[in-house]
Amino acid sequence: MTFGKVTGTVVASQRSDEITGLKYLLVRSCNEKGDMGDDYLVALDLVGCGRGEMVLLSQGSSVRQTEVTKQKAVDCVIVGIVDLVEKQGKVVFRK
Amino acid sequence: MTFGKVTGTVVASQRSDEITGLKYLLVRSCNEKGDMGDDYLVALDLVGCGRGEMVLLSQGSSVRQTEVTKQKAVDCVIVGIVDLVEKQGKVVFRK
Amino acid sequence: MTFGKVTGTVVASQRSDEITGLKYLLVRSCNEKGDMGDDYLVALDLVGCGRGEMVLLSQGSSVRQTEVTKQKAVDCVIVGIVDLVEKQGKVVFRK
Amino acid sequence: MTFGKVTGTVVASQRSDEITGLKYLLVRSCNEKGDMGDDYLVALDLVGCGRGEMVLLSQGSSVRQTEVTKQKAVDCVIVGIVDLVEKQGKVVFRK
Amino acid sequence: MTFGKVTGTVVASQRSDEITGLKYLLVRSCNEKGDMGDDYLVALDLVGCGRGEMVLLSQGSSVRQTEVTKQKAVDCVIVGIVDLVEKQGKVVFRK
Repeated sequence: MTFGKVTGTVVASQRSDEITGLKYLLVRSCNEKGDMGDDYLVALDLVGCGRGEMVLLSQGSSVRQTEVTKQKAVDCVIVGIVDLVEKQGKVVFRK
Repeated sequence: MTFGKVTGTVVASQRSDEITGLKYLLVRSCNEKGDMGDDYLVALDLVGCGRGEMVLLSQGSSVRQTEVTKQKAVDCVIVGIVDLVEKQGKVVFRK
Repeated sequence: MTFGKVTGTVVASQRSDEITGLKYLLVRSCNEKGDMGDDYLVALDLVGCGRGEMVLLSQGSSVRQTEVTKQKAVDCVIVGIVDLVEKQGKVVFRK
Repeated sequence: MTFGKVTGTVVASQRSDEITGLKYLLVRSCNEKGDMGDDYLVALDLVGCGRGEMVLLSQGSSVRQTEVTKQKAVDCVIVGIVDLVEKQGKVVFRK
Repeated sequence: MTFGKVTGTVVASQRSDEITGLKYLLVRSCNEKGDMGDDYLVALDLVGCGRGEMVLLSQGSSVRQTEVTKQKAVDCVIVGIVDLVEKQGKVVFRK
C-alpha cells in the first residue's frame, strides 16, 4: 500500500448501464510523513474518510476483493485512514 | 483510476478466432483539470463516451470484472465520463 | 492496451514439465502512428500475426482470460492486429 | 519479489466496517546487498518479521492468495525473511 | 514477459507457518541480446534453470496460474529458459 491525502471529489456518470453519477475521491500522493507529492489518483472510498485525511491506498486487481468493489472495474481503493506512522522509533505522522 | 481524454479510435482484427474488426478508443492521458499529457492508451469503452470527453480509466486485471470484459484479454477500460472534479473546494473541471 | 510491432521470435524451453520448446514473439513498443520505441517485450500470440505488423498488447493478469492462456504463467499477449488508428479525425496509421 | 527492510509501523483504522485499528509495517526498499533505497511501502506481515530485518516483498494481486489476505484489499505483503543472498558464488548478504 | 539472467540464490524463511527455508533465484534483468541491465529481481523457478542461463520472467498475478504457485503469494516466476532470440531475421542470442 502507499500513502495519499484526500483532496477532492470526482463525479462521473456512465451512459450505458447506470443513470446516477458515481462519486470518487481525488487523492494526492504523499510520503510517510504526510508531505505531499505531485501525483493525483482517483480512488473509491471503502472506509468513510474525510477531506485532508491521510489514507492508505491499495492499487491493482486486489481491490476487487471486498463486498463493495466485487464485480466493479475499480483499480484503486482507500483501505484505511492513517492514524499514526512510526519510523525507527519516532512518530513521524499522527492524525 | 486515472484521467484521460478520448482522442480517436483504433480498429484491430484477430485472425485466429474472430472475423469482424473490434473498435477500441484512443485515449490521451490528462490531469485532474483536463490538461493533456503525452501518453496514449487504447481502452475499451464500457460507458458510451464521445470524442473529446474526459473519462476515468481503470487499468490492470480489475477490468475483467464486468459483463462486457469477462473472459476477454483487456487491460484498460473506460469506467466513467467525468462530469466534475472538485479540488480543495474549487471546481477545477466541469464537463 | 498499448501498441507494438512484431520484430522477431523467442524460443524457450522448460526443463521441468515440458519437452518441446515454446515459441513467443519479440515485440518492440511503438506509438499510435507506428513509430518504434526502445522497449522490447516477449508476448504470446493469440491472433496469428506476422512479422512487422502493428499489434495491440494486453499486459498483466488480464491475459489469463482466454482459452489459450488459461492456467499459464503468461503476462503479455497480442490481442489484435491494428488495421487503422484515427486521431482527431485524421488517419495516423493504416495497415 | 523485491527486497525491503522493516523500518516502522503504520496504524490505520476503517470507519466503515471495523472498529479496531490495523497494524501494517513500513518497509524501505533495498538492494540485494541490503543497501537501502529511497522508497517506502506499507506491507502486511505474513511471516512475523522484526524491526530492521531484510524481507522479500510480493506486490500486486498475487498477495490475495493466502489464508490471511484472502478477500482483503491488500496489494503488498512480506512473504519471507531473507536469511542469505548469494550472487555469482559470493555471499552478499547474511542475516 | 521480459528477459533476465540467473545470477544467484536467495534463502528466505517464514516464522509464521513454515519452518524450512525457501530457495528463490536472484535474477538480473537483461535485453533481448543478453546484455545485462541494472535491476535485480527475486523469482521462483518453475523450469529448473541453472546459473548464468537467460530466462523468461513473468510478473504480476499471472504467476499464480500454475500448480506450483497456486495459493502462494508469489509475484515473479521463471517460465522458460531462452534457447534462441531472433530479431529481424538475425539470431541475436543463442544458448
